[in-house]
Amino acid sequence: MKMMEIIEGGITTPQGFKAAGVHSGVKYRALDLGMVFSEVSASAFVGYTNNEVKAAPVQVMMKENSPKLSAVVINSGNANALTGRRGIEDVIAMKQAVAAELNIDPIEVGVMSTGLIGRFVDMHKIRYGISRAARELDTGREADGLFTEAIMTTDTIKKEYSVRVRLEDGTLTYISVASKGSGMISPHMKVLHGTTLTIVTTDASLSPAFGSKWQEILDNSLNMVSVDGDQSTNDTAILMANGKAGGSFADDDPEFTSALETVMTKIAKTIALDGEGATKLIEVQVTGAESKDDARRAARQIINSPLVKSAIFGSDPNYGRIMMALGNSGCKFNLEDVRLTIKGGDIEVPILDSGAPVFQEERSVEVVRMAMDNKEVIIAVDLALGKESAIGWGCDLTYDYVRINAEYAT
Amino acid sequence: MKMMEIIEGGITTPQGFKAAGVHSGVKYRALDLGMVFSEVSASAFVGYTNNEVKAAPVQVMMKENSPKLSAVVINSGNANALTGRRGIEDVIAMKQAVAAELNIDPIEVGVMSTGLIGRFVDMHKIRYGISRAARELDTGREADGLFTEAIMTTDTIKKEYSVRVRLEDGTLTYISVASKGSGMISPHMKVLHGTTLTIVTTDASLSPAFGSKWQEILDNSLNMVSVDGDQSTNDTAILMANGKAGGSFADDDPEFTSALETVMTKIAKTIALDGEGATKLIEVQVTGAESKDDARRAARQIINSPLVKSAIFGSDPNYGRIMMALGNSGCKFNLEDVRLTIKGGDIEVPILDSGAPVFQEERSVEVVRMAMDNKEVIIAVDLALGKESAIGWGCDLTYDYVRINAEYAT
Repeated sequence: MKMMEIIEGGITTPQGFKAAGVHSGVKYRALDLGMVFSEVSASAFVGYTNNEVKAAPVQVMMKENSPKLSAVVINSGNANALTGRRGIEDVIAMKQAVAAELNIDPIEVGVMSTGLIGRFVDMHKIRYGISRAARELDTGREADGLFTEAIMTTDTIKKEYSVRVRLEDGTLTYISVASKGSGMISPHMKVLHGTTLTIVTTDASLSPAFGSKWQEILDNSLNMVSVDGDQSTNDTAILMANGKAGGSFADDDPEFTSALETVMTKIAKTIALDGEGATKLIEVQVTGAESKDDARRAARQIINSPLVKSAIFGSDPNYGRIMMALGNSGCKFNLEDVRLTIKGGDIEVPILDSGAPVFQEERSVEVVRMAMDNKEVIIAVDLALGKESAIGWGCDLTYDYVRINAEYAT
Repeated sequence: MKMMEIIEGGITTPQGFKAAGVHSGVKYRALDLGMVFSEVSASAFVGYTNNEVKAAPVQVMMKENSPKLSAVVINSGNANALTGRRGIEDVIAMKQAVAAELNIDPIEVGVMSTGLIGRFVDMHKIRYGISRAARELDTGREADGLFTEAIMTTDTIKKEYSVRVRLEDGTLTYISVASKGSGMISPHMKVLHGTTLTIVTTDASLSPAFGSKWQEILDNSLNMVSVDGDQSTNDTAILMANGKAGGSFADDDPEFTSALETVMTKIAKTIALDGEGATKLIEVQVTGAESKDDARRAARQIINSPLVKSAIFGSDPNYGRIMMALGNSGCKFNLEDVRLTIKGGDIEVPILDSGAPVFQEERSVEVVRMAMDNKEVIIAVDLALGKESAIGWGCDLTYDYVRINAEYAT
């Protein structure tokens, strides 16, 4: 059997996890409250938004910084952000309600919220939802699906991936990730330190030291996604490892790390592709940078440029804008050495040579348009200066992004 | 007579300046080449884009760093950026052609370009345009108008302001500014150091030391405008002072500074309002910041947020996004102390108290929508921490911005 295999599965695929998704009434009709429960207390690794304005659940969880979680409750429709002291009290009440239902310690309850900023949560509805979700906790694909649906806001695609991986010591473990996120996406999550909410369940065992590796994986996956450059007040990514598969700590197992990276990269790309109004996935590959930081900065600046994003929406071969964005990134490079390539479908077009475009003919420019006229467009920038690289994901800027966000609160 | 008076006038209103605007053929039909000439050599103060990828004319002018200019030629339709060695040679040829026509030293010829990035300039057309513009140089409102029209790209409003100011020593002087800029607007111009191109003519006398004041005025005016957060490869702002009004140096004359600030602020607001696809002007006023840098950073982050901009387009009272953007700015503040006010027309709505919204009722939220439903929306953020302030200008993000930029090169 292969060491790692992508499988059909969801948040309850790893052993010992249950989930539910219910309608609490915060949203008019859709499911709006999800719950995940591990039958044994799980080691928890959490990345939080770096935005100075942090939502109430983020504030509470950062303060408690619990190394163990048994349950996570997620409500959608209301971000519980910009809600002052009352918001904090509501989070504490949510934790207590979940703890009472599941007979666990409130400190082992994680809370994530997403939705409109600046409105108080209706706790009557939330309490009802928590109680109902606790009763409906279950395993299997139906539970997975209800949970994933309950955490969505403007998402149009359910975001879940599962992988089965055999560790070096022979233990068979599962990793599953479920995520939401479509707009206000430009996470820079720090361990203890998007609104993307992500929860990863695994039945592998992880030691507390795994936190730094979780940060590194976040930095290469979710933290390299940007839909609009706007970092949310609520971004949170929780990894729960309950050890139900047995075996020793998987911290340094290369197969485990690789499997976790695989699902996190898949989820990152899916979030980008499902960016509000998006019609195309843009992948920016920066190589040859002097530092990792430079590579990431360059990738993010290109991914975030409204002019680059609009050009790709229209398959408009205005590649000068990519270089404009690179020039604004603060990343080091010599223009004369930069190699820029645009790829889409089977077409790969080299653009620059010695600081000027390779071609000027309208007919050649037409090839760039053909490359851009694909569901997935790759912008490869080789700075030819050093050995560091980074990959970032984003999406095009479309009429629908404007429409969605011009009438969100309405 | 008042010390300072806004007057109907243009780039040739100050004594000793002539201008022209012609069709060179770079654009299909519209005017595309403008020229300004001062009959005596003028002290020149120039701010250049901070983008690492600098257009050929910017590179050449920064290198020469001439303290005196007699003429400036501006072509629109082609940015002469990302054009390598050939681009540089074309700029030098443009300077020589203008110098030959006007019988001046090539080093005293300024060059600015705007338009598509990554295409070589057609020098046959440019030479023809230069020759024709030199012959058509004139004073008066018709010349002003032709010049201002010739430098436009996606602009829909001609951008020019004039002011008459009596200096403390009694000298009567004139200041006029003409500008273009609509997209790729987020200038951070440094002296010796947009694509906004701006030219200011004045018949006052200025000493070389005025450069630092020009930087300060740029930092408070053009450098606080952002249409899309994308800084151009070509932004340039040239101030020409030919001293034809006589009198002593106006460097430290408060009336002169105030008059120059007035026209530069007016032009900054006009550029923001004429942002690509814009339907509204957004002014962000940040007060109570600990440092000037903090105040500017906060204003810029709010002005640049696609989510804030889309919300204002739709008059969607989603004020939480303003705080989300503030939280991402890196500016220091205590959330509990921040006062946020939204103003539009005669309506002024306080939003925050102690870190939470003042009101939660749908009826109150409706008032925010009414305030936002104005041609000019003011977002006032008082950080209540220090004494520094800044004002930034931007515009809403609309369907038309996407349309314009999805088919620019086409």
